[in-house]
Amino acid sequence: LFGASNMDQEKKTIEEIGEFGFIRSIMEKCLYSPESVIQGIGDDCAVIGPYGPYEGKVLLITTDLLIEDIHFLMGKITPRELGAKAVAVNLSDIAAMGGTARHIFVSLAMPRGMAMDTMEEVYAGMKDLCRRYGVNLLGGDTSSSPRGLFINVTVMGEAAEEEVLYRKGASPGDLIYVTGTLGDAAAGLKLLKGELPAPGDLRDVLVAAHNRPEPRLEAGRLVAQSRLASAMIDISDGLLADLHHICEESKVGAQILQERVPVSRELSSLCKANDLNAFHMALSGGEDYQLLFTVPKKNAESIERQIKQQGHPPFRIGKITAEEGVRLVSPHGTDGEITQRGFDHFPPPAR
Amino acid sequence: LFGASNMDQEKKTIEEIGEFGFIRSIMEKCLYSPESVIQGIGDDCAVIGPYGPYEGKVLLITTDLLIEDIHFLMGKITPRELGAKAVAVNLSDIAAMGGTARHIFVSLAMPRGMAMDTMEEVYAGMKDLCRRYGVNLLGGDTSSSPRGLFINVTVMGEAAEEEVLYRKGASPGDLIYVTGTLGDAAAGLKLLKGELPAPGDLRDVLVAAHNRPEPRLEAGRLVAQSRLASAMIDISDGLLADLHHICEESKVGAQILQERVPVSRELSSLCKANDLNAFHMALSGGEDYQLLFTVPKKNAESIERQIKQQGHPPFRIGKITAEEGVRLVSPHGTDGEITQRGFDHFPPPAR
Repeated sequence: LFGASNMDQEKKTIEEIGEFGFIRSIMEKCLYSPESVIQGIGDDCAVIGPYGPYEGKVLLITTDLLIEDIHFLMGKITPRELGAKAVAVNLSDIAAMGGTARHIFVSLAMPRGMAMDTMEEVYAGMKDLCRRYGVNLLGGDTSSSPRGLFINVTVMGEAAEEEVLYRKGASPGDLIYVTGTLGDAAAGLKLLKGELPAPGDLRDVLVAAHNRPEPRLEAGRLVAQSRLASAMIDISDGLLADLHHICEESKVGAQILQERVPVSRELSSLCKANDLNAFHMALSGGEDYQLLFTVPKKNAESIERQIKQQGHPPFRIGKITAEEGVRLVSPHGTDGEITQRGFDHFPPPAR
Repeated sequence: LFGASNMDQEKKTIEEIGEFGFIRSIMEKCLYSPESVIQGIGDDCAVIGPYGPYEGKVLLITTDLLIEDIHFLMGKITPRELGAKAVAVNLSDIAAMGGTARHIFVSLAMPRGMAMDTMEEVYAGMKDLCRRYGVNLLGGDTSSSPRGLFINVTVMGEAAEEEVLYRKGASPGDLIYVTGTLGDAAAGLKLLKGELPAPGDLRDVLVAAHNRPEPRLEAGRLVAQSRLASAMIDISDGLLADLHHICEESKVGAQILQERVPVSRELSSLCKANDLNAFHMALSGGEDYQLLFTVPKKNAESIERQIKQQGHPPFRIGKITAEEGVRLVSPHGTDGEITQRGFDHFPPPAR
């Protein structure tokens, strides 16, 4: 029974093992009808196929939880922004596979005393995103919550099987790109928490990066349709953490050129004024929801040109290496392996 | 902002409006790419099609939340039973459409101090059901929870489009069937809460009905494959509440013959010993996860024979009427409209 197990001090807790350790432990023996499964646990989405009336289409499915006091703070985000963000972070996983989002399913657990118009605003925010990306809200579940608001969104999308990009496709020599500036959302969170001072206009931009992330569906489609990239992931846990996922699944390493990591003018100003290192925020800050993708060297010029034509110039930040581990090259040439990983929902306890 | 809205005492709360009122309010304007949507919000599953390599197949999707202290009590169910039940209640929705379950996605939010082997047991319970029904565990999300365990399961299934049974298909004159005895799970919950005394063997059967529900996938397939039924639903909120859903969607009423409502020997003994009305428990008790289906009179003999041959004799409990509302016929011929509805996760406050 739960009570009894929790009282047993000898047993390891989830906290000690960490989120990724826990996920690894449950990844065993999950397939009991594997025939239609192209990708199970271990990427941004599961992939099932064939799907639909067209030859070669596959289904993409992903699910994400947003929990009050863990993923968001009441009073620091409007209900409408919260609803939109709950959908955006899921659509971002579809973008990361190169797919098109189609349907969402929403489970909500809410405190009994919550105002009706607050919840209507949460749904209005969800539907804002649905409208913008042509996505249907097809179902869900609602319940009261003993404490705090819980939102779980499941999204289904589709893609041509040949175009889907996984975490596992990167090879040594491939170039690494990101679709936009990094670290803004993490800085926005610090501002929301009152940890830093900032002038109003700077604050607005960075807080919006945190509270109103935009899924990079169009960019993801462009990369996938080009058929020139080798792997892709969305940057939800931070550049280092998500690059590490690519490296682990592809059994490679990576080298990042510090001066190439794109940082916004706003983040740069904020960090200068507060004597902080913008680069560190860009490396480890989570929730940017830009895409990271890798491209074989021979395809680099062609994919850069194609994406630039659509008004989304990507940033080349480094390359994939045969040697495992992520290494950092600073402008002064110093070079060291990075151990900092980004955001873990169950970080090991501080020693 | 949330804080501000909650402080506004003039606004209606979710609690005052109730779960069904809330769901109705969010059902508007949900479709932004309706071409593949056969059924959106408002049935046991969403239905999307066409799907898969075979002509005429559709996808079924549903999602259900289980929350500590709302849907289960720690210490009253083993972790393994809890994992299995979280999957079973979702598979039951696939059964209710007449489909075959294929894949599940699991989101878990767990308290930081939870023991690793407790969570492994929860997953072992999920996989027990996956193995039994040939279902794949394809993904999910994990997070820490500020309080209590939250489990959200999304399940995907498939069916032949022509065989799918909706809530909306019932017509006046159709006969009403259920696939098994009702009220056992509700009695089991009372025993778990210590509200009633019971001898050990009786207790075991009724508690198992609550903690180890079995999705009626095989029965649901038989009913659907026969193509002789007109509507179907699973009994999760209680016979009256779920029959009410059928009536509402089909724009009909129903008449239930009290003496035909199947009650187990165990529930009957428990109620006799405690001077309770077993019939009331069977009408309003939730979480039985039997199926309720309706059949045009001309098909009744044929479907009863087909289902009996497979060892699942269904119970005929009443008929659909043109007059709206659910009416109860007692053995003494008295006859009255029933207002009691079963389990609402946001019941209006007592006056």
